[in-house]
Amino acid sequence: MSLILAADIGGTNIRAAIITPQGKITEAVRTQISLDNRNISENDLIIQLVSFFNEIIQKNTDIEAIGIGFPGFFLGNSGFLISSPNLPKLNNVELASRLSSNLNMPVSIQNDALCAAMGEQRYGAGQGKQNLLHLTLGTGIGGGLILNDVPYTGENGMAMEFGHLRIAHDDDARSCGCGGFGCVESYASATAITKRYFENTQIRIDAKEIYEKACHGDLIAKDIIESSGHYLGTALAEAIKLLDVHSITISGGLTGAWELLYPNLIQSLNANLIPPLQGKISVLKSTLNDNAGLLGAAALVS
Amino acid sequence: MSLILAADIGGTNIRAAIITPQGKITEAVRTQISLDNRNISENDLIIQLVSFFNEIIQKNTDIEAIGIGFPGFFLGNSGFLISSPNLPKLNNVELASRLSSNLNMPVSIQNDALCAAMGEQRYGAGQGKQNLLHLTLGTGIGGGLILNDVPYTGENGMAMEFGHLRIAHDDDARSCGCGGFGCVESYASATAITKRYFENTQIRIDAKEIYEKACHGDLIAKDIIESSGHYLGTALAEAIKLLDVHSITISGGLTGAWELLYPNLIQSLNANLIPPLQGKISVLKSTLNDNAGLLGAAALVS
Repeated sequence: MSLILAADIGGTNIRAAIITPQGKITEAVRTQISLDNRNISENDLIIQLVSFFNEIIQKNTDIEAIGIGFPGFFLGNSGFLISSPNLPKLNNVELASRLSSNLNMPVSIQNDALCAAMGEQRYGAGQGKQNLLHLTLGTGIGGGLILNDVPYTGENGMAMEFGHLRIAHDDDARSCGCGGFGCVESYASATAITKRYFENTQIRIDAKEIYEKACHGDLIAKDIIESSGHYLGTALAEAIKLLDVHSITISGGLTGAWELLYPNLIQSLNANLIPPLQGKISVLKSTLNDNAGLLGAAALVS
Repeated sequence: MSLILAADIGGTNIRAAIITPQGKITEAVRTQISLDNRNISENDLIIQLVSFFNEIIQKNTDIEAIGIGFPGFFLGNSGFLISSPNLPKLNNVELASRLSSNLNMPVSIQNDALCAAMGEQRYGAGQGKQNLLHLTLGTGIGGGLILNDVPYTGENGMAMEFGHLRIAHDDDARSCGCGGFGCVESYASATAITKRYFENTQIRIDAKEIYEKACHGDLIAKDIIESSGHYLGTALAEAIKLLDVHSITISGGLTGAWELLYPNLIQSLNANLIPPLQGKISVLKSTLNDNAGLLGAAALVS
């Protein structure tokens, strides 16, 4: 049987899986990798990835293609890496074609958040939608967009920098890691939620604990999750007024508190839309969660 | 010689022109029309338009196709009118095909702001750009978007509702005709500029006079135009972070004060972009102005 090797490459580890063309994960692999080294060079990256993939391929001779989600900006759907914010030495790398010639099989590679969008569209909550906006709520907030069934990258692979939409313009707007102010990411990402909870309680716990506290009645945690829904809805309205896309899926830890998040999100979304769009937008919780990226990477080659 | 009849249909009048396939306007026509009647029915609209176009066609037997810009939301590039905010009785009208069968020649029709974008891309400041965002600054603020050389309409023709992007979220945010608050249109449209000038001076003059006063040293007028540039740049940054489109053109009365508008617009645009996009975006003043919509309508059929 022909199988796909899919990988979701993060800063500190690679998740990989062997996947059937129907989207069934038959075997999962996770490995530490030193991509958190900001100084990794192009050649070192290729060597590490080829070694990692070769080990899996040699054990599974049915693998016929590799799909990869990677934290970087790609030129269209060419597999050409323009740049990667967290790996600044990587610029203009023929990543897909270098991996393909080293591994001797087809390799496709695309932005990780865009892969998650493709996963949701092919196998998850956005199944069958020709137009889909997907958000990944993690330490940052990523976004992926599919228009007319095609992953949309923008001119330099930087489309859907959703986390940096502004939801505050006043002098008190929170500062963001991008250098700007008022970005939705600085209010509603896991990092922001941990920070906001600490500001209110002087207790530093991770976002997952805060979601759980919120669901069990902690009023400060509840308020932070609910207001995060409000901020996400406000930013989503801006995207919908520009894109007129009617299907949204959301994955990531914060969706664990969906019953607190969703009502505020949808209220704020509709309140900020023009009247003919109000009530028309469907916002669904991911059905794939952590696997959206892996399955979307597989969709690149199937 | 084969010629195109192009028309730009507004609320109170139709501008039309006979245009060569090379984009040369050979003859211009303007007529009053009673589309400002909000109760116009589908049949009355068709009758009025057919009568108007027939009169021109009968005098010019070289006309082989008609392209029309219309203030409404269209389904993709099909010529099917979904709705029109100012003409509420028009819903789900086979507008292009009804006109075509009545006039016995090919008719294409698209949203007016999107036609202006196509005009700039084919013949104006955005010539040759595969991806282009165009703004029309008038009584409202319209937007048109071209992605990969194709006019982008969104799922229900409502994409690029740029005027309703929010640039203020505080309690003092201005109210907008859409029912929302903080829309860029309520700060930087001609209507808004007249209103803001009145608030500061108790003098009610039209936006054109305000642009002229601004260019001739009136400090209040100057501040309003400069801050309008700032607000437009802030809203444009949101669009660019989502779309990663690098070429912007702007038409409309406010561009008469370009030397005041542009420096603030580009400063605010770059200040609100993520670092890898800063300095990459070109913002150009329309070279077609009033004719952008007409020429874009011609581009629909040439």
